Amino acid sequence: MLHRDSPIGIFDSGIGGLTVMRRIKERLPNERLVYFGDTARVPYGTKSPLAIRKYAAEDTALLLRYNPKLIVIACGTVSAVALDVVKETAKDIPVLGVIAACVATALEKTKTKKIGVIGTLATIASEAYPREIYAREHGATVFSKACPLFVPLAEEGFLNHEATRLIAHEYLADFKTEAIDTLILGCTHYPVLRPAIEFIMGNKVQIIDSGEAMALEVELVLASRDLLNLSKTTALHQLMVSDVPQKFKTVAELFLGIELPDVELVAT
Amino acid sequence: MLHRDSPIGIFDSGIGGLTVMRRIKERLPNERLVYFGDTARVPYGTKSPLAIRKYAAEDTALLLRYNPKLIVIACGTVSAVALDVVKETAKDIPVLGVIAACVATALEKTKTKKIGVIGTLATIASEAYPREIYAREHGATVFSKACPLFVPLAEEGFLNHEATRLIAHEYLADFKTEAIDTLILGCTHYPVLRPAIEFIMGNKVQIIDSGEAMALEVELVLASRDLLNLSKTTALHQLMVSDVPQKFKTVAELFLGIELPDVELVAT
Repeated sequence: MLHRDSPIGIFDSGIGGLTVMRRIKERLPNERLVYFGDTARVPYGTKSPLAIRKYAAEDTALLLRYNPKLIVIACGTVSAVALDVVKETAKDIPVLGVIAACVATALEKTKTKKIGVIGTLATIASEAYPREIYAREHGATVFSKACPLFVPLAEEGFLNHEATRLIAHEYLADFKTEAIDTLILGCTHYPVLRPAIEFIMGNKVQIIDSGEAMALEVELVLASRDLLNLSKTTALHQLMVSDVPQKFKTVAELFLGIELPDVELVAT
Repeated sequence: MLHRDSPIGIFDSGIGGLTVMRRIKERLPNERLVYFGDTARVPYGTKSPLAIRKYAAEDTALLLRYNPKLIVIACGTVSAVALDVVKETAKDIPVLGVIAACVATALEKTKTKKIGVIGTLATIASEAYPREIYAREHGATVFSKACPLFVPLAEEGFLNHEATRLIAHEYLADFKTEAIDTLILGCTHYPVLRPAIEFIMGNKVQIIDSGEAMALEVELVLASRDLLNLSKTTALHQLMVSDVPQKFKTVAELFLGIELPDVELVAT
């Protein structure tokens, strides 16, 4: 049985998913959130589907110990290549990946139906986004591009640096040529690079931030199952990671946008 | 008992260590090399000493299955924070880290005794390089800088890209001010970025490449123990990894400089 006062479990390959946690927290302040970031094995996006699927099952199993009423995959890569693994491991607990939420928002906003998607190597190679978009909208045209340097640039805090703009220009130039009107940020690290991405894409292209899209989806799913918490819990949010590396606090606060709660080190 | 015809075991967090394998292969063509790259958990350099030490012990145990006559840590980060763990795990088998080799070469070449060191966050935070340099040469002055973006830039093939030069300029500017005459590349990924680094540092600064320094050290250690292979073995080199991600072959060949031998997927 799922309970209203159970927490929402959120996981990511690392701390990029804190951008999703932040949006859920803003939208649903009554909810208690339990976040796990697999910082010992981060990044996932440069690795193989085989490795990602193994890690995703382990991450889900870890969250299940906290009896969540919903599991949120705050990782574009896991959502793209291991959604089925997470659902299988989570059994009766509902699971939300970022792809459906981002695609729903993108299809609402696009006028020309020319949609760009950026993500990790693994996400783009999986073709999960074009598959989801074409299934919902035959008339769409999807352009995809892997942007492997965006994750390290975000983690190193090179947010609106000239080097970041140069790299963004190189990655995004084709989207300009193809005249997309909507760009999905298919990796939860990317929202902190939004100013650099917008600098290249201009202000006519709608940017779809997976955190915002997910927070809306979380609310809809919980409401439909009558699982929204009606009063604010006094219990604190929990933040667990598999490693606490150099500069962890600084980088994590960059993604979360507020001061971190206590961080617990756990083994996967 | 160690045997002349046993292989040399080499490991790294990923495939940056292939730059070391390449130099050993060039210098000691008779030797059979067994390489393990922990591509499922790469990178190590952004992680904590705790995680790195655990991984280093597991990597060493894996190489021990091949009865190596020598273990080469082709990873600056492991050499800096887990040399003792590797030695303990390897028991009677000699172990070489990159630090002693690089420092020996740097002290031979420097005239002003002003030495710069670049490496990962974990390597620089460990202060292993300054410790080793000051222990051998009291009159030296050491300047260190972590360059976290160099590994992803190398792996993404942004070798002499304008963005790489901008980032290199930012990382290396202090070395110019301090007028170092020798710069240690304290991460085995960095040799492929040498043109960009030299572009910033100019041609008066000596660059110490850990691959070259290690190959020399390997020869000296094996010769001193009468363990050099006297005739070329017909056995092939072995290349093992814990994950085979996207673009693996392209990137690995960039570091190795030749076509890859067959790659075997192993679990740590």
